[in-house]
Amino acid sequence: MSQARHDVVGIGNAIVDVIAHAEDAFLAQRSMAKGAMTLIEAREAEALYAEMGPGIEMSGGSAANTMAGIASLGGRAGFIGKVKDDQLGAIFLHDIRAAGVSFDTPAAKSGPPTARCLIFVTPDAQRTMNTYLGASVELGPEDVDEALVASAKVTYLEGYLWDRPRAKEAFRKAAEIAHRASRKVALTLSDPFCVERHRAEFQELIKGPIDILFANEAEIRALWQVADFDAALAATRGLVEVAALTRSEKGAAVLTSNGLAEVKAEPVSRVVDTTGAGDLFAAGFLYGLTNGRSPADCARIGAIAAAEVISHVGARPERPLKAFVAERLG
Amino acid sequence: MSQARHDVVGIGNAIVDVIAHAEDAFLAQRSMAKGAMTLIEAREAEALYAEMGPGIEMSGGSAANTMAGIASLGGRAGFIGKVKDDQLGAIFLHDIRAAGVSFDTPAAKSGPPTARCLIFVTPDAQRTMNTYLGASVELGPEDVDEALVASAKVTYLEGYLWDRPRAKEAFRKAAEIAHRASRKVALTLSDPFCVERHRAEFQELIKGPIDILFANEAEIRALWQVADFDAALAATRGLVEVAALTRSEKGAAVLTSNGLAEVKAEPVSRVVDTTGAGDLFAAGFLYGLTNGRSPADCARIGAIAAAEVISHVGARPERPLKAFVAERLG
Repeated sequence: MSQARHDVVGIGNAIVDVIAHAEDAFLAQRSMAKGAMTLIEAREAEALYAEMGPGIEMSGGSAANTMAGIASLGGRAGFIGKVKDDQLGAIFLHDIRAAGVSFDTPAAKSGPPTARCLIFVTPDAQRTMNTYLGASVELGPEDVDEALVASAKVTYLEGYLWDRPRAKEAFRKAAEIAHRASRKVALTLSDPFCVERHRAEFQELIKGPIDILFANEAEIRALWQVADFDAALAATRGLVEVAALTRSEKGAAVLTSNGLAEVKAEPVSRVVDTTGAGDLFAAGFLYGLTNGRSPADCARIGAIAAAEVISHVGARPERPLKAFVAERLG
Repeated sequence: MSQARHDVVGIGNAIVDVIAHAEDAFLAQRSMAKGAMTLIEAREAEALYAEMGPGIEMSGGSAANTMAGIASLGGRAGFIGKVKDDQLGAIFLHDIRAAGVSFDTPAAKSGPPTARCLIFVTPDAQRTMNTYLGASVELGPEDVDEALVASAKVTYLEGYLWDRPRAKEAFRKAAEIAHRASRKVALTLSDPFCVERHRAEFQELIKGPIDILFANEAEIRALWQVADFDAALAATRGLVEVAALTRSEKGAAVLTSNGLAEVKAEPVSRVVDTTGAGDLFAAGFLYGLTNGRSPADCARIGAIAAAEVISHVGARPERPLKAFVAERLG
């Protein structure tokens, strides 16, 4: 195993977020599953956008947000994902590079436009997402940069990739490259509905190539179809080297061969928008893990990074996380 | 004079803002005039964007922000300005309509892309703007919708239009239509550097067709080339029906034939980003004016609207201004 040039390389959908405030009634009228991520087609995206209030646009994408978080913490991160060579694609590319993340996946020259996610933030700060995958579905195994993946201590894959067959191939190829280079492979379950769509395959992955697992309580319960968190914990035990399970205001639990470590949620004076909370928890955790921290420390760094991102609108850190975490970690 | 279907119609550059945090050193290294608006060409815009940190995108444009503010206050506003039919143009169009503003200027099918303004927000919450005018320079007299202008109690023109000859023609045409329909014409001086570029013509406008003038202290002093505010006030007296002059934390002064009214600045717990302060002051003021309020009340509504917009990132209101103002106005 050669010296790692990157701490983490993330593979995921390259998405620009469009964020607007909305009332609960708006979601209810459209039968949206509050807090979830729903896939929508181009026409639905257009119709929904027409009904949406004034928005702000920011680069997003789950794994991309995580990589931006790692870079903000001082870690070395890379990203693989597909945009189109259009204006939103240029924004995505600019932002991830400006965040300090290596990103060289070629933009698609034809086909659908850069992906966007219409995010509705309700007065309770919950976010409900409607994603038009656009160009991001063009991601295929040919986009997996072997040298980049082999150069990273951890390859981080988002469960959302499983929604498209070629992205799934890319996912499998990346996991193989990583293991051949004696690196670790991490997976986030992404969303409970995503777990519903791919439960059997996710279970296989976790019993197979996945070394590090991220999930929130709803996702891990959906994975094992159990009603309570402790049962989900029991079902996960022994299957992966590290399982980092988040529980919103109840904190997080980390399962390793050494047992269970639990940390509290980081206090936040005002939760403004929960978009990116899970992504940034993963950022902090992976930064800690690839820099030799204990499981409990990893979870605390994750909780602090998540606390920053939910204190403002948008899924990427506003403040340099390195200083923010150092201050709070003591 | 027929019944007015709109309170105010604004004519200005149709711009998408790209907002990022920056340190003072970043501005200094690039010799940027802090707090000002500088025009840049396509290539400079690209080079500067490459050096900019991760950004957020939001619809902007001075007069467009003002119209969005008027709509948020419950007023009836329209906008005339030029985008291209590209992704940023679609964002601009969506946002202004979603804000409740009438907007029907046809998008350009060819030529430069939709305008963007690269905004650097320094730790003191000041904003420094670099504008690539793109498609907005295509605005010409043919885009001035006669019926729309004639339908509004006030036609509001931004000084920035003066930077391009065809926009200037559009400006003059709109002023003529408005006056033929016995409506009022308002001008904002926009920026001290803009005043430097067009001083003689702005002086002529103010002595001529302009009924309502908006300026901040730096702009009105630049207009008359005087060192202090009282001298600028004296120079303005008698030239327009209403002059609304803002002085940041010193409040605002309103000059009419009935004398001078002064109001204090509205307290703000934390100034985050001053982008849009002047635009939203104008929104509140014009909303008051077109709804029969006294000059002092107009200025207070303006100050409250400005206080909302400087308490967060971006130049358009985050909260519905109608309720926000009602609460504070008492």
